[in-house]
Amino acid sequence: MNGLRIFSDTAFAERAMDLLRDGVAEHELVFPLKPAVSVLAKSKAGPEIETVEVAFGQPDVADVLRAKNLRWLHLTSAGYTRYDTPEFRAAMRERGVMVTNSSSVYAEACVEHVMAFLFAQSRLLPQALTTRCANGVAEWNALREDSRLLIGQRVLIAGYGAIAARLVECLAPFRMEVVAMRRTPRGDEPVRVVSLENFDMELAAADHVINILPDNPESRGYFNASRFSMMKRGAVFHNIGRGTTVDQEALADVLESGHLAAAWLDVTDPEPLADGHRLWSAPHCYITPHTAGGHAFEAGSLVRHFLGNLRRFERGERLVDQIMGA
Amino acid sequence: MNGLRIFSDTAFAERAMDLLRDGVAEHELVFPLKPAVSVLAKSKAGPEIETVEVAFGQPDVADVLRAKNLRWLHLTSAGYTRYDTPEFRAAMRERGVMVTNSSSVYAEACVEHVMAFLFAQSRLLPQALTTRCANGVAEWNALREDSRLLIGQRVLIAGYGAIAARLVECLAPFRMEVVAMRRTPRGDEPVRVVSLENFDMELAAADHVINILPDNPESRGYFNASRFSMMKRGAVFHNIGRGTTVDQEALADVLESGHLAAAWLDVTDPEPLADGHRLWSAPHCYITPHTAGGHAFEAGSLVRHFLGNLRRFERGERLVDQIMGA
Repeated sequence: MNGLRIFSDTAFAERAMDLLRDGVAEHELVFPLKPAVSVLAKSKAGPEIETVEVAFGQPDVADVLRAKNLRWLHLTSAGYTRYDTPEFRAAMRERGVMVTNSSSVYAEACVEHVMAFLFAQSRLLPQALTTRCANGVAEWNALREDSRLLIGQRVLIAGYGAIAARLVECLAPFRMEVVAMRRTPRGDEPVRVVSLENFDMELAAADHVINILPDNPESRGYFNASRFSMMKRGAVFHNIGRGTTVDQEALADVLESGHLAAAWLDVTDPEPLADGHRLWSAPHCYITPHTAGGHAFEAGSLVRHFLGNLRRFERGERLVDQIMGA
Repeated sequence: MNGLRIFSDTAFAERAMDLLRDGVAEHELVFPLKPAVSVLAKSKAGPEIETVEVAFGQPDVADVLRAKNLRWLHLTSAGYTRYDTPEFRAAMRERGVMVTNSSSVYAEACVEHVMAFLFAQSRLLPQALTTRCANGVAEWNALREDSRLLIGQRVLIAGYGAIAARLVECLAPFRMEVVAMRRTPRGDEPVRVVSLENFDMELAAADHVINILPDNPESRGYFNASRFSMMKRGAVFHNIGRGTTVDQEALADVLESGHLAAAWLDVTDPEPLADGHRLWSAPHCYITPHTAGGHAFEAGSLVRHFLGNLRRFERGERLVDQIMGA
């Protein structure tokens, strides 16, 4: 497939731009009047938008709708609130336009971040890195005996999407028992999946609960005092979803009482928490400042993800991370 | 295979002993006069040692040699210095006795510990856990951009044995480039393996160097100023082998100069390092107190490992962790 015109609106740094230029090869890049300065800000296209078959970035919804030759839109973000309306979905479906996002790009970093949480907890890094003792003394024996193996532990994942699917792959060598909660189980998931109404019954058996829920009216405050109390004594709570899905006072309570052994949070509400917030001083509460999705050369990863889909598009194959459309 | 007599000399706690009793099923356990109080202390057997076909624990060498019906000895340790003599090896070979150890049991915990190091470094946990900032500020952008993915990074493992083999399995989902150094490459390793004389040429390309070398006359001080200088600027050094294999002054130098980005050490020489040692204050030097091999219910793991081999022994299959003998 030669000579596609590809609208690309992201103000990538030179290194990522070179990767993009090399990767599109025989196709032609079309640039906007006003670029998107981040993956959260939309661009403004000129009249050439009407000539492109592919758009890559954060184009304005009105621009997408007047791109009458468009066959595929690839977003640089994982979120797509701006495009997620019944009207836009219907327009894409009717015109046969595929829409994909970049959730795979952020998923990898999120998964590695939660792996860091799981291993740091299992090997008690916060304690071990601050313990200076000789082999064989009581403090040393206690630290070794309290250190854990992931093998044989049970993980309960709240929210099954791109992140959870990749997490399951990464946990495979550790032969954990993995259960995931998905609003609408499809039956093709590689682990046991339960629906929302059966989630609470799983809480008592989990050693680690990993929250990947997005923010929406149903998820707000989902992890509340009642659900924390259903968790096994000594279990660990992880959050790489959204801070709003947790009743933070209830979480502080179960950490202070010792009911939960630890909490590892990449997200809070707000970010950062106010100085003096109870979670800053709650026992074994470890907080990273919403860095789970980030990684070096993120721009390069976004470009590579697009180029991977471009190769699939050229061959007429199924695209990765499709969210709507044909 | 019914009615084996199994000498078991470890003073296991009740829970592990129950597991052992249940697991041996129809076979008979034979206990010592004086039990082994740890996996480093030998036991003393009574005259029944002459009747057993299997021994599990830390039997005295003299006891093993008079156990004339013995067909299989399974040690509860990974190290086996006490048994590692030409005379003992010859005796086992001549009498057709298989000898296995428990290195798999400790390997799993060591591997999970080094996974904790790799992920904590990649996701910059030490920095992220102490940073309180809002999304989007310069400090936040820098932390996200400095965070890494394991994917695409290169790992060089010094010392290929049970730990490295298991580490390679656990790294598989992250599609890293893995190279390992083994004294005598066998050709059946699942990664590229180099011999000792070609190790230095690999240093410049590695993002992470993982030292699993045992202590012996050749390995002492192996990681010296010369080898640290051959490593890539910004690389990370990990040590879960033995502290004696590192020139610690040279390591402090390359951390202070910024040539290495970080060091993660579970072992030092001595343990712990003296108060005031340079490595305590060297930049990005993270030290755990030789806790890599430890984990909760280690006794249970030792028993399960023995029972797994017992099932193989019953079926005439190859045993796991064989170190000498038939």
